[in-house]
This record gives sequence, structure tokens and C-alpha cells, in this order.
Amino acid sequence: MNQQELLKVLEAVQSGDLSPRAAIERMKHLPFEDLGFAKVDHHRALRQGFAEVVFAKGKTPEQVAKIVRAMLEKEDSRHNVLITRADAKTFAAVKRLNGKNGRAAKFHEISGVITIERSQEITGKGAVAIVSAGTSDIPVAEEALLTARMMGNRVEQIYDVGVAGIHRLLEHREKLMSARVVICVAGMEGALPSVVGGLVAAPVIAVPTSVGYGASFGGVAALLGMLNSCASNVTVVNIDNGFGAACVASCINRV
Amino acid sequence: MNQQELLKVLEAVQSGDLSPRAAIERMKHLPFEDLGFAKVDHHRALRQGFAEVVFAKGKTPEQVAKIVRAMLEKEDSRHNVLITRADAKTFAAVKRLNGKNGRAAKFHEISGVITIERSQEITGKGAVAIVSAGTSDIPVAEEALLTARMMGNRVEQIYDVGVAGIHRLLEHREKLMSARVVICVAGMEGALPSVVGGLVAAPVIAVPTSVGYGASFGGVAALLGMLNSCASNVTVVNIDNGFGAACVASCINRV
Amino acid sequence: MNQQELLKVLEAVQSGDLSPRAAIERMKHLPFEDLGFAKVDHHRALRQGFAEVVFAKGKTPEQVAKIVRAMLEKEDSRHNVLITRADAKTFAAVKRLNGKNGRAAKFHEISGVITIERSQEITGKGAVAIVSAGTSDIPVAEEALLTARMMGNRVEQIYDVGVAGIHRLLEHREKLMSARVVICVAGMEGALPSVVGGLVAAPVIAVPTSVGYGASFGGVAALLGMLNSCASNVTVVNIDNGFGAACVASCINRV
Amino acid sequence: MNQQELLKVLEAVQSGDLSPRAAIERMKHLPFEDLGFAKVDHHRALRQGFAEVVFAKGKTPEQVAKIVRAMLEKEDSRHNVLITRADAKTFAAVKRLNGKNGRAAKFHEISGVITIERSQEITGKGAVAIVSAGTSDIPVAEEALLTARMMGNRVEQIYDVGVAGIHRLLEHREKLMSARVVICVAGMEGALPSVVGGLVAAPVIAVPTSVGYGASFGGVAALLGMLNSCASNVTVVNIDNGFGAACVASCINRV
Amino acid sequence: MNQQELLKVLEAVQSGDLSPRAAIERMKHLPFEDLGFAKVDHHRALRQGFAEVVFAKGKTPEQVAKIVRAMLEKEDSRHNVLITRADAKTFAAVKRLNGKNGRAAKFHEISGVITIERSQEITGKGAVAIVSAGTSDIPVAEEALLTARMMGNRVEQIYDVGVAGIHRLLEHREKLMSARVVICVAGMEGALPSVVGGLVAAPVIAVPTSVGYGASFGGVAALLGMLNSCASNVTVVNIDNGFGAACVASCINRV
Amino acid sequence: MNQQELLKVLEAVQSGDLSPRAAIERMKHLPFEDLGFAKVDHHRALRQGFAEVVFAKGKTPEQVAKIVRAMLEKEDSRHNVLITRADAKTFAAVKRLNGKNGRAAKFHEISGVITIERSQEITGKGAVAIVSAGTSDIPVAEEALLTARMMGNRVEQIYDVGVAGIHRLLEHREKLMSARVVICVAGMEGALPSVVGGLVAAPVIAVPTSVGYGASFGGVAALLGMLNSCASNVTVVNIDNGFGAACVASCINRV
Amino acid sequence: MNQQELLKVLEAVQSGDLSPRAAIERMKHLPFEDLGFAKVDHHRALRQGFAEVVFAKGKTPEQVAKIVRAMLEKEDSRHNVLITRADAKTFAAVKRLNGKNGRAAKFHEISGVITIERSQEITGKGAVAIVSAGTSDIPVAEEALLTARMMGNRVEQIYDVGVAGIHRLLEHREKLMSARVVICVAGMEGALPSVVGGLVAAPVIAVPTSVGYGASFGGVAALLGMLNSCASNVTVVNIDNGFGAACVASCINRV
Amino acid sequence: MNQQELLKVLEAVQSGDLSPRAAIERMKHLPFEDLGFAKVDHHRALRQGFAEVVFAKGKTPEQVAKIVRAMLEKEDSRHNVLITRADAKTFAAVKRLNGKNGRAAKFHEISGVITIERSQEITGKGAVAIVSAGTSDIPVAEEALLTARMMGNRVEQIYDVGVAGIHRLLEHREKLMSARVVICVAGMEGALPSVVGGLVAAPVIAVPTSVGYGASFGGVAALLGMLNSCASNVTVVNIDNGFGAACVASCINRV
Repeated sequence: MNQQELLKVLEAVQSGDLSPRAAIERMKHLPFEDLGFAKVDHHRALRQGFAEVVFAKGKTPEQVAKIVRAMLEKEDSRHNVLITRADAKTFAAVKRLNGKNGRAAKFHEISGVITIERSQEITGKGAVAIVSAGTSDIPVAEEALLTARMMGNRVEQIYDVGVAGIHRLLEHREKLMSARVVICVAGMEGALPSVVGGLVAAPVIAVPTSVGYGASFGGVAALLGMLNSCASNVTVVNIDNGFGAACVASCINRV
Repeated sequence: MNQQELLKVLEAVQSGDLSPRAAIERMKHLPFEDLGFAKVDHHRALRQGFAEVVFAKGKTPEQVAKIVRAMLEKEDSRHNVLITRADAKTFAAVKRLNGKNGRAAKFHEISGVITIERSQEITGKGAVAIVSAGTSDIPVAEEALLTARMMGNRVEQIYDVGVAGIHRLLEHREKLMSARVVICVAGMEGALPSVVGGLVAAPVIAVPTSVGYGASFGGVAALLGMLNSCASNVTVVNIDNGFGAACVASCINRV
Repeated sequence: MNQQELLKVLEAVQSGDLSPRAAIERMKHLPFEDLGFAKVDHHRALRQGFAEVVFAKGKTPEQVAKIVRAMLEKEDSRHNVLITRADAKTFAAVKRLNGKNGRAAKFHEISGVITIERSQEITGKGAVAIVSAGTSDIPVAEEALLTARMMGNRVEQIYDVGVAGIHRLLEHREKLMSARVVICVAGMEGALPSVVGGLVAAPVIAVPTSVGYGASFGGVAALLGMLNSCASNVTVVNIDNGFGAACVASCINRV
Repeated sequence: MNQQELLKVLEAVQSGDLSPRAAIERMKHLPFEDLGFAKVDHHRALRQGFAEVVFAKGKTPEQVAKIVRAMLEKEDSRHNVLITRADAKTFAAVKRLNGKNGRAAKFHEISGVITIERSQEITGKGAVAIVSAGTSDIPVAEEALLTARMMGNRVEQIYDVGVAGIHRLLEHREKLMSARVVICVAGMEGALPSVVGGLVAAPVIAVPTSVGYGASFGGVAALLGMLNSCASNVTVVNIDNGFGAACVASCINRV
Repeated sequence: MNQQELLKVLEAVQSGDLSPRAAIERMKHLPFEDLGFAKVDHHRALRQGFAEVVFAKGKTPEQVAKIVRAMLEKEDSRHNVLITRADAKTFAAVKRLNGKNGRAAKFHEISGVITIERSQEITGKGAVAIVSAGTSDIPVAEEALLTARMMGNRVEQIYDVGVAGIHRLLEHREKLMSARVVICVAGMEGALPSVVGGLVAAPVIAVPTSVGYGASFGGVAALLGMLNSCASNVTVVNIDNGFGAACVASCINRV
Repeated sequence: MNQQELLKVLEAVQSGDLSPRAAIERMKHLPFEDLGFAKVDHHRALRQGFAEVVFAKGKTPEQVAKIVRAMLEKEDSRHNVLITRADAKTFAAVKRLNGKNGRAAKFHEISGVITIERSQEITGKGAVAIVSAGTSDIPVAEEALLTARMMGNRVEQIYDVGVAGIHRLLEHREKLMSARVVICVAGMEGALPSVVGGLVAAPVIAVPTSVGYGASFGGVAALLGMLNSCASNVTVVNIDNGFGAACVASCINRV
Repeated sequence: MNQQELLKVLEAVQSGDLSPRAAIERMKHLPFEDLGFAKVDHHRALRQGFAEVVFAKGKTPEQVAKIVRAMLEKEDSRHNVLITRADAKTFAAVKRLNGKNGRAAKFHEISGVITIERSQEITGKGAVAIVSAGTSDIPVAEEALLTARMMGNRVEQIYDVGVAGIHRLLEHREKLMSARVVICVAGMEGALPSVVGGLVAAPVIAVPTSVGYGASFGGVAALLGMLNSCASNVTVVNIDNGFGAACVASCINRV
Repeated sequence: MNQQELLKVLEAVQSGDLSPRAAIERMKHLPFEDLGFAKVDHHRALRQGFAEVVFAKGKTPEQVAKIVRAMLEKEDSRHNVLITRADAKTFAAVKRLNGKNGRAAKFHEISGVITIERSQEITGKGAVAIVSAGTSDIPVAEEALLTARMMGNRVEQIYDVGVAGIHRLLEHREKLMSARVVICVAGMEGALPSVVGGLVAAPVIAVPTSVGYGASFGGVAALLGMLNSCASNVTVVNIDNGFGAACVASCINRV
């Protein structure tokens, strides 16, 4: 029951063709969310506010390309397009598609992210700092960085500052302290967010990575470390979830 | 600031081109670890910016009282005092102490929190909504609520809105959507943050609780559920960590 | 916005005091689920269809008594009242309460269940068989049995038929095969549902119990055994969740 | 000892060739289950009542084909044949086999299911609704759907209704409420069955999927979420066990 | 249908009162295992062959005493009685009971075992060696020792021979090598069975104990160590299951 | 220092060429276990008593062949040779090697076992029954069967007798009851040993297999089920360790 | 068979009273480790080299006192006595005992350690630094500190230097860098050893503590963090094992 | 050094009482973070003190070669170069690179280690014994051995001395006892370090390996065994971390 239909019912009431009680009866049998004024899909709105996103893993290159084309054809949207967990084949499929309208898709191989930048507008209020511990954590850090950028944030990148060489981290203190949100990406013992959390007043979003072997259990050691952080401004997202961390950072950077 | 630069500054002091105090000023703006007066304890500052906090568990009533007295005696601080995971005995000890200067300590039995409110100033920019699933989750929700309040936030309380009765949650949609940060407290399957995350554009901080039995494994089921949330604006803190969730919410509500 | 209010709006439209479009605007700002015809609380309806239930654990005797009184005072309900995970103190509190209207509450000590039977109507279409493996599983089996009974089912009780003495189970084959739903309660290796599932055509609801020690891990061994059952008509509920098993059995016994 | 042999013994008793006590002695040394009237294989009967099933994983295409041929050659059976966890090679082997008797095998690639439909009779009493959360859950949902269909059930398919976009689920409320059994397929946090369980009066069979990464632990997060569901009409089967869920649903839909 | 009843049926056949086919029909409707000659309860027979056992944990002293009285009153049995996981109260209850017929019950406090020895016959063919690692493992070792003794085995006790002092174990080499079965009881890293397994040709039954703290996880470390033993003559029973180990040892010692 | 060397030392003492104290000094510097009377390598002796065994996994075909050649060249040994976890390439390498001395190696593809039978002597005192639950458990069962056979045991094979079709198992009751040791191989819920343990008086060695998916966790569900068996004559070996089970069975069958 | 006995045998050989072969026979029947020159109990020697230790947990006060008396009565030992995991009752029992010979036992309540210092000799070559993260980690740190001291080491105590306030740790850098071994005690995320490991060249022994709640899982989070430390000079002992850490530190400090 | 003290220093410079260089000297001895020239990178220094290390896993051959070239081109370093977790391709890339300056890189295939030895200086004070249990543990043992050697230690190699053949280990007792540090590498039940720890006075560093199957859980069984070692001179590193064990051993061997 969309607004048009509701309007007809109300006009029938106005015209006397339908009694108020009969109108109620008729409305009862329609799904409420079709009333038009009871939309609850704020989530989709929210994401559209940021960027169009496709999670490529588990989809064929053709499926991804098809979804992207639909996104690009929406006349009224100028949002950036972000494709995560993609590979070269998917990029080729997207590239072919894009040739048509001349927009440049870029493949960021290290993180498996494809970006189609249609707007460079910065809508975040401050900087999002992306801090990572070791070189093996960079793929996840890059996913976070590109996501944050596509969602309209200015980002500061602070890589390779593991806690076993604490001075390297301390050298970046000012950059850290000036960020509005900090994303901390670390595998192995996942100690970085605790140290960073102690240095800044901003919220810290910790991303455990599956980097490590043996008792790292695919990122579980880092995850537990972060959940037990002794710094009280740290929250955690799923293992390797650079994308999610950047989404939350974007939320925070807009409030 | 390397030795060469420091030497130049000192030579300028020696030559009278720079006063000692001006030298200190210049040094202040250089990486902290070079300087002596560049205290890195911003974290403590941060927490003090909010409230003085004592974690009572594992401390004797006397130890807690002693720490609180030290806090109260600091002339220049008007911060609220928050004591978490306390019991009646600790409260009695704190109460005796306070009698001296007439400040009223309050014991919130359900959450084991003691508050000494010395300032009612609201410093957070918006409202923090605290949503909880079942009645057994309320102790954790209350810890979050009192923490958020003591830290200068306006809070909105939305309790008993478990996902198996989805309409109860939907009734509060407007309150939810107007919050600047949402804290979601849930045990058992921990599904609430996913549903709430889909309804709001604000960041959602999920707090798993140890409520449940059997395969809830003391909150692990809820924790895993939240880490795997299909809503992309959800982050997670440790099981039963209502305090931590409110700290992060306060950070976000001030940025 | 309840029906009364909606009626007023519609009458205002009828009387010409309000235009159809203005009516829509006004309706937009009201929570949809208050419209009266968009009730989604079928769950509560469902449970009321069976019995009124209170989960006593974590509530004081007084809290339980208060909730029960509210249930009993609802004029139009003749549902049975079921209080699970209760103890003698809670029973005393409930007993005092009931003295007023002379209804007899009963305490089933072995399972910690309190029942107030107000209706003996059998609404389930067939029998629910409740099968348990060892004597230590009986508390959970009893919780299931009493729940099923209070929800209007005829129950068949088959206790102490562990798989290491397979002939004891086989003796009850006919009773088993005539049941419409079977609830299987077992701790330790949790093998009973597989054997029972192979004997009957009815759906089997498996309840792992926390009975055992060492590598039973509080019921995890039984839970995993049941989830991996080689019988294809077996589903599983949480450890020690006799109540839940009986709820599902009641659902099935009514369809 | 089949009926024929028993008959001979009894006839010998009747004729006086064998004393009653000697007859008992002779019967003692024969396996009881050969008596003919003590068959306990109701399980096989049960499955035959539904469909002939082959679990292809771990079998060579030739092995599967051979089993299927045996099934098809049973003169008296008109049951549908269902092959789960199969691939294109297995399908080719089955196809060759079927060419002989002209029956059409179909390969459902997304779920790895091969069906040979020999009967379209609907024997289930109502509809089985199959609800799934994300697009990645569809393979498991399809396995459930095809199994349910081959077992003679009418199915309703409700896909892509994850809890982070709750309105999408609510749009299908009527379809959900009219089902006799609901199968809920979800990975990640596995919250869907709790929300669905709150909306319907029918039993809900929850199927966790191994969809997700990191702390989803191959479906464990979803499994635990479902076992701890706050909706009391939810039971659970093994991770990715769409087949099992449909078996149970068929049982329920026939009782 | 016991033998008497079967006899009557067969006599009716003999007398011509019942046709063989009618006899079959009548037998069909009786539970097969009641036929008398189809007893499958060899397990109970087996245990009776050894000793009468009561698992006291989870039973009241009165319940235990009642079960024991029934055992003692069976005229034809001279089996030893073994009560495991008992305490002083249970012993008192058993003691009162025994006063009546003058049999002496003994309480072995360290292992919580009560024994009533009625026969000292040695029925095992060789010696059962019971080896334990640390002093904290002794309660479990004693449970095994008393069980083995009550079941008619000669036992050799070798205590306090942890692998970190390998010479202490080697001193007992001859005793070890002359045993027909070895039971190895160890907590912490559970390494003892591997070393013992390398020294003897007999089967080694390993019993992990819950001794230890931290990463011993209540005996899991020892359990895993034993399951992964590099000695190929080692099998394992549940954590702290001294009773079970002795049962198996008795089986082996009788074959 | 073997006996010959020791004898020389002692003869030198006897002849007066060496003083007793000097003799002690010389003995001190030799490894004690070489003294001849302090041999502790009974384990090797034990295994040689059965068969020569190579664990091929993780070794190259050439390495395996080299080890086997060494075994075959030992003049005094007529033991069977057993190679476990091998593949076709390893078999080819072994085959080439064997061509030389004409002994026939056989490759048992299903279990990955290579056997070189040099003796068919039966040294076990009774039969070893090998029982398996599902067709997917057969590779592990076969490893056990071939190991038991190569070690000189008569084996009885009872396959495909899962507990969900209990009658299939009961049909083999006599064969089961006449075995001296029973090996039970089962994946999924691992319930088979409990049922078998209830039927026989012999020791039952349970082998969990990694068969299953989802919550079977690679055999952990079956392992836990077996460790918690309610039958008291059950012990357990590692997941998929058919070889180990047969070793223990051989030990038992010889005592 | 000690050296004296062996000497006698050899003298008998020398004198011709015993043939060399007869001598060998006699030696065969004696436990090899009694030969005097084949002592393997270096471990006990090792521990005696440090201190006499009693693990009180699980022992009665009387048992502990008895063991201590035996230690004190050994004429030739002047070792310190260390009793770990003790309580006030045990201390009272030990105190009574000591009254007799006037030696002063001390009870260190915070760590549950009792010390009887009989020697203040420093035998370690350098200092052992004991670093702990939070106030709740102090009991474990104290156990390590007292153990190290009783074993003859100079200790440096650096407490309350958690990584979320990194400057507090850095202030102690010189003390840290001058230590010969560092013991790091930390609960929660267990990040301290990584940071300390990066600051010092000495070996770092990490002790996870069971401090924390929720996802700290009784110290598992800290344990995993430490095992995955990105600093390459870190090793780990069991959760809460301050004693063990100090033992290893003593070993290192003596080499 | 607080502001007051710094001010005084600066005023002394201003007044000419202190030269700028003397001021710097004084500042040097104050907590480093106050100073600029107080580099904290002692960790890098530490590692350089030993060898240059590259962890090749997750890097392309080209990346590794590039890093190695940079190492070799540092004029002032004569350190050995160690590349761990490498393969043949990486070796080829390194080999090409080295051709230029004629230094010989060697590939140790079994452990995946590449070494470039530029110095054979022994800087460790004693021997490092490397003990391993089974042949499958050798790759990890070799990683430890080569690392220890490249870091300037004399190493003793004791392989294939599993605890199930205890005499093989005892044969090496003297070599073991003369080592200054012992590294114990073992998979499966991980019992070796306990036995070795009981034989030596030196610190024992235990390395669990991922060798095993089923309930070894990729090395977890061995890891837990080692953490629970009953020998008090044992510490543990991560699963398969031969490199880390050798780093710690080097630290110890230099103190």
C-alpha cells in the first residue's frame, strides 16, 4: 500500500464512499511498511550516503560487473563505487564495463579493492588515522584506507609501527593526536590499539588481522588481545575487517 | 628534534637570543620524547576530562575509600567520581569517607556502581542511546548508562527490546534515530546490534553480556554474533564491559 | 496511535476538517505499529496461546510473585502458569500470593518448576514422548515434561534408556512410534537421539544436558553429538533447555 | 530366522515333532531381528516414504551412478531421487545412466544438488517457508528447498532478508505466518531465526551456514547464536545442513 | 512376553488350540526382547561379573543407601560393592544400613570411594599396574586402584613417578614390565603414558587428571597429550575417570 | 658398552690388570644403557614383535623405499611390513624395490596402506572385531583391519552399522560377542562404541574419524562423544588413528 | 647398588671369588641408576641448588608443616625454604613448627607465599627485573619476586607500567636495560612483554595472569598474546606461573 | 626531568654556568623521553648484534632479494644474513643478487632457510643443544639450529629422541648436561621438554611443532603440554617457532 493507494482510501473517506471504520479495516490487511511513511530502510540510505559497495568474494566477475553497471546507471547518484575482496579477473570484467562511459576503475592489488571514484568531496569532519603494526597487516590497512577515502574522509596513513619498536610509533604522536578517529590494524598479539589508545583522546577502532601462525589461530590471539585492551577508548571489529572499521570511522567522522 | 637542533636552541639561550621560558615553549612543539615537559599521559588527561574512575573488584573497601579520598582532595578537580563493580561494603566505606565533606555518594545496586556527582554539566554534543535486549542485561546496561552520565552525556534509555519481539524495538525508532551514538547491550544470541545498526546512521557500540546458559558460554555466543554483525556500523567491546562502551561513546560524543 | 486516534483522524477527513494529504502527514509522524492493524506481536500471542511463563533464575522471589500476580489478575485468561528454574523460596513467595484466590501452586523440586494449573484442556493433537538417558538427566526431562503438559499436550515418559543398554530403549518402541513428537534428553555422549531418530518417523528434538564431567565440557560433547546426528529427523536446542524443547514440541503438536 | 523358518518350527510343535521347550531352545539361538515381526528398520521406511537420497561427497561419480541405478531399478518405487553435495562430473555420470530409461536428471549448480523427479505429488499438509539472510546463504537454502520439494512439500522462498534491513523481512510477514514450518538459513551472526521466531507461531528450524570470515569460525558464530535464540520456537541443525533441516520440516509437515 | 508366556503359546500350538500362523500373529504384537531368549543386556551381566557399582555424585545419601541395600539383599550375589564419588555423609548412611547385616563398609577418603568387600577372589589373570605422576593425581589413581581390586584384580601401585624425574620411573621398570595391563594417571602435560608405553609391551590405559592450573584447562592439556601419544600401545579414557580405566583394565585382564 | 666390553673390563679386573676402582672409573664414562643389562628399549622389541611399520606421510617415496629396503634386508626378521598413509607414488617406489627379491607388496588404495606379507602366522589369541558406522569411515576401519592382520590377528569385519539403524548392528551381535577385542570406528556423533560397549564384555577401542562437516569439527564431536561414553568398557585413541587402535588391540589380544 | 656395593663385587672378581660372568649376572638384577655413576637425578640437585620448594595448594597445613620440618632437619642444607600458594592456616602450622628452632617464617599475604630465609647469599650473576602491568597482576609478580629472591637473585621491581600509559614504562628504561633477565607479568591483552622485549637485549620471560573478565578467558587472551609476541626475545610460561618464571630466570642468571 | 629542572638547566646555560654541550650531557641521563637524542631503538641494535633477518613468507622473491641487497650494501655491517620460511624461487632471486658480490648464499631445503654467512665468529659463551623428538620435527629443529649458528652460537644437535624410547635420549645425557641452553622441539604430546628439563640444570626452551593429526590440533596439544610442564626450567615459544627459540637461546647464551 503506497501513498497513492492510501490517498485513494482517504479520498474515499472524504467523499463519503467509505466510512472511517471500513477504511481501518481495509488498511489492516495491507503490509504496514508499504504505507510510505513507515519506511524503516534507513540503513540503505545510510550506506548510500557514503558509497556504493560490492563484496566481490563468492561472486563471479560477471555478477560483480552487472551489479556495478546498475549502480553506475542510477542517474541521480554520484557516489563512489567500492568493490572489496576482488581479484584481477573481476577487475577486468569491471574495466570492460566501464569502458562504455569512460569512468576510470582502479585496482588496488595489495588489498584486492577496486575503486571507481566519482566524487572527491570530503564530507568527514576530521582526519581518520590508519595505523598498522607490520608489513603483513598492510592489505587489511589498505582496505580500511580506501574504504575511508571513498566514503569522503581525509586519511592519515601510519604504517609499520609495531609495539616491539615503540619509538617508531611515538614519532607519529602528533599525527595520531590530531586525528578524529583512529583505526588500528594489527595481527599477532594485537597490542597496538592498547598503546595507541593510551596516546590519543579519539576513539580507536581495532582491526585484528589473521597474520601470524601457530597460536595466532588465524587472528584469534589478536582479537582477544584487542577485546581485553586496557585502554578504555578501544572497540573492535571482526578479524581482517578493514572495510567495517572504515565504515564505523566514517559514521563517527560525520556525527 | 635531534641533537643539532637542540644544540642550536641551547646556544641561542646561551647567547641570550632566547629566554629559557621561550626555549621551553619551542621545545614543547617538538616530538614529546625529546623534551621532559612533554608528558605523554594524555590518556589520563582524557579520562580526567570525563570523570575519575575506580574499578573496585579485587580491591578492599578500604583501598577503594582511600583512592576516592585522594580524588576528592584534589582541589582543582570538580570531576564526577565513578566506582564500578562495587558492593554494599565498599559503598559503606565510601559513605563514611564522604560524610566529612558532605558530598553525597549513591549506590546503584543493580549495576554495582557508586557515583559521586559533583558536576551536572553536559559536555557531550548529542544523546547516547542505551538499548538492551532482556531484563537480565540491565545490570550491564546500567553500568553503561551511569558511566555515560557521569562523563557528561545526555542518555536515552531503551530497555527490554529483544529481537524476538521486533515491534517493541520499532516503537522506539525515532528515539534511536536521534541519538548521536548507540550502545547496544545483549546476551544470548547478541542479535540486537545488527537490527539496531540497520535502523540508525550513528555508530553502534555492541556490548555482549554473559547472560544465558549452556552454549552461550558466558557471553561468547553473543560476542561472536556481534563481531559477525551484518550491519556495517557496529563495533564491539568485551563481554559485560558496559563501562568501556560508555567510554568510547563519550569519546565519540565529544569529537 | 491506537485505533481510537486513527478513527478520529479518519472522522476528521470524513467531516472535511482534514484533507487526505494532511491526514497522511499526521500519520507519518506516529509510530506505525500503534496503528492497531499492524500488530506484529504474534510471538506474545503465540506464547499466550500456550501458557504464561516466568523464567525465575536471576529474579528475586518477590519479583517472580509480582509477575505471577499480574498474570493471575488478567480476567480473561485461563492459561496455565509455568515458572522455570525456581527454588523453594520462590515457591513460598508464590504460594503466599496464591492463598488469596485459592489456586494451588505446585513445586516440582527435581526440576525447579512451579506450576499453577488452571486448565487441563488437551490442545495438542498427539502425544509428546519424553525420553531420557540417565537418572541425572531427569531434571531437564522433567522441565520438558511439565512445560509440555502445561501447554496442553499429552505426554509419554520414557526414562533411563541409555544407549549402552539398548534393549531397555527397544522395549519402549511402540510407545515411541506412536508419539507425534519425541523429545530426547541426554548428557555425556548424547547418542540417544540418533538411536531414537532411527526408530521413529516423528521429528525428534534433542536436548543435550550438562551431565558428565571432564571432557563433557558442561554438555558440549552431547551438544556436538546431537548436531552431528546421523539420523536425519533430529534437531537440537541449547544445553539443559528442556523448556525450549517442549515449546517447539508444542508448536509441532498443534500444526 | 524369517517367518518361513519360524513357521516350520511351529508346525513341528503342532505336529508333535518338537516339544514347546525344545522349540524355545531352538529359537534362542537365532538372531531375534530375523523373526520377521520384529523389524526395527522404521528409519529406512521413513526415508523411503520421502525420497531416495545419496550424499555424493566422498563418493566417485561412478559410485553415485551405481547407487542411483539401483534405486531406479526398484520396480515398486516411484520415489524422487535426490543427490546432494554433487558436482558436474557426478551429474554427467548420472546423466549417462539415466539416458537409458529416459528419465530427466537435473543439476542445480548453485547448491550442488541433482534431482530426478518421478512424482510431483504434494504429501505435506502445508507450506514450508525457506527464509535466508544473505546471497551467500543461498546454496544452503537451495539444498533445503530442493530437498523439501523432492519430499513432497509445497515451499515458499523468501531470500535476502537479513536482519540489518528488517523492513525487507517484515514485507514478507504474511507469507511467513501462513507457513506450517519455517526453515531459516543464515550465516554471520545467525540472528534471523530469532526475529522470524518472534513473528510466527510455527516451528522454526534454524540452519547456520559457514558464510563469513574471521570470528565466524566457519559457521560457529551463527550456530551459537541460533542455539541461544531468545525465541522459544527455534531448533537448530548442523552448519550448512540444508538437507537435514528439510528432512525435519518434512517430518513436521506430515504429522 | 516372558518364557512362561511363550511356553503357553507353544503349548497351545502343541495342543492344537492355536494354529502356527495365529501363533506368529500373537507373537508379532509383543515386544521381542521379552521373549527371554533374545536378551541383549550383556552389559549388565558384564558389570555384575565384576562388582556392583553406584556413582554417588548427584544422589542423596539416602538414595545411595537404598540402592546399596537392594544390592546387598540379592541372595544370590556375593559381588563386591563399590560406591564412587562419595563423601562422609553418604558413608554414614551406608554404614547405618550395613550395621544390620554386619558387613563392613570402608570409606577411602582420598578418592571418595566406599567399598564393601564380600569376596577376595582374584579373577584377573595377571597384575594391573597403577602408575601416577604427582601427589595430586593420587585421588584418581586410588579410584582406579580400588575399582580394580573390587573387580578381582591383583594391583601393583607405582606412585609419584613424574617424567621430570625419569630415574624414579625407571627404578620400577621390572614391576611395570611384569604387569598384564598398565593404568597411567597424570595431569599437567600428561606425558607419563608415552614414557611408560615405551617401556612395556602391555596395553597402557591413560587417565588424564584435572590437576594443574591455567593452560591445563581442567585436564584438557593432559587429555590431548595422551591422545597424541607417540607410544602406540596407549588408549585414553575421560578426564579423572579412574573408575573407567579400571573397568577396561579388568576386561583386558580377564580375556 | 655392550656385554662383551663389560666382560673385558671384568676380566682385566680378574687378571689384576685393572683395579676395581679404575674399573668403576672406566664404566662411569660409558652410557649406562649400553651395559647390556640395562636395556630399556623394550618398545622397539615390542613393535618388532608385531610388524615393521613405516608412517609414510611427510616422507618422499624414495625415503620410504629406503627404509623398507633396510627392513627387508635384516636377515633374521620375517616380520610383515606395514606402510601407512601412503599413496600410489610411494607404492611404485616400494614396488620397484621389491622386484629385486620377489616379495609382493600390495597397495590398499582405500586406506592408503601398503602391506608386504611375509608371515601369515596368527599369534593373537582370539578375534579382533572391526566395526564401523558409515561408508565414509571405511578408510580408517581398513587401516585398523590391515594393521591388525599384519600383526598376526584374526579379524572380523562388521561395516556400515550406524546407530540410526540399530537393527543392522544387532544382526551382528553374535560375531561381536565372540570377539576378544572390538575396534569401533565412527565419525559424526561417535555413538557406536557406546552401543557396542553395552552389547559385549570385551574391551572396546573407539576410533573417532574426521568424517562429517560443520560442527563435527574434523572429528572432535566424535572424539568427545567417545570419551564420554556411558559404556564402561570403552577407551579412545586419536582421531583417524586406525593404526593405533589395532596396535592396542594386538597388545590385548596377546596378553 | 651404590658404589660401595659395586666395589665389593669388583673386589670379589679381583680376588677370584666371583667370575666375570657371574658378576655381570649379579649386576643385571640391580636397578642401573643405583650404580652411583649413572645418577640421573640432576633435577633434584638442581632445585636443591636453589631452594627447597613446597607447592601448598591441595595439601593440608599439617602435610606442609611435615614436609618443611623434614627440610629444616637436613643437617647439611642451608637452603632457603619457599612455600607457594599457601594461606594463613598453613602459615600458622609452619609457624608453630619453626618456633622450635627459632627460625623466622614470613607470610607474604598478597601472593600466598611463605618464606624461611636461611641464607642471603646472592648467587645470581646479575639482576632479575620483575615488571608488571596492573595492580591486579601484583600477586603473581610477587610470587615471582619472592621465588627469585629465595633462589639467590637480586631483583628489581617495576610495577604498574601497563602499555596504555607507555610513558610510565619508559621512565624505567634504564633499570630494565641493566637487568640480566626480565620477567614480565601481565593479564588482559598481555602486551607488556612485546613492548619490553623491544626495549631490552636480555631474555624476557612472559607470565600471563588470569586477571580480566569476559573474553580474557582466565588468562588465555594474555597467553596467546605473549606466544605471538612480535619481539623475538620473549618466551612464555603457564598462566599465573610466577614461580616457574622465576625458576627459569634463576637458571639463566646462573649460567 | 620536569619543567622546573629543565628551566634550571636552561638558566644555567643562559648564565654561562653550563655549556650547551654539558647541558645535553646532563639531559642524557634523565629519562629518555625527555630528550631527543635518547633513541629507544635498542631492539634493532639487539637484532643487528646477532644477524640480519628476513621473514620471507608473504613476500615475493623480488621483495626478499631487494631487502637482502640493502643489507649487504651496508658497508659497516659484517653480520650474517638469515632468511626464514623461504622456497626455491626466493633462493634463486637471492642467488642472482649475490652473484654480483660473490658471496655464497645457501638454501637449506628441509627448513626453508637461506643463509649468507659472512662471519664465523662464535660470540655465544657456551653450547646451545637442539633436541628434537621425531623425524617430522626436524624442519623446525633445523630452523632453530641455523638461526642459532648464524647468531654466533656453537650448537649441539640431538635428533630423534622421542620419549617413547627413553633410552635414546638418555644416551645423550652428557651432551645435554654440558649445554648452556637447551632448545627442545617436539610435536604430538610435546613431552620431551619435561623429560629433558628433569635431566639438565640449564634453561630449556620448548618449541611445539604442528606435527601430528586429529587431536593434535596443529600443535595445540604439544603447546599445552609444554606450558604445563612439570619441570620448572621450561619456557615456551609459539608453535613451529624455531627461529624465536634460537633468538632467546642466543640472548641467554650472551648474558
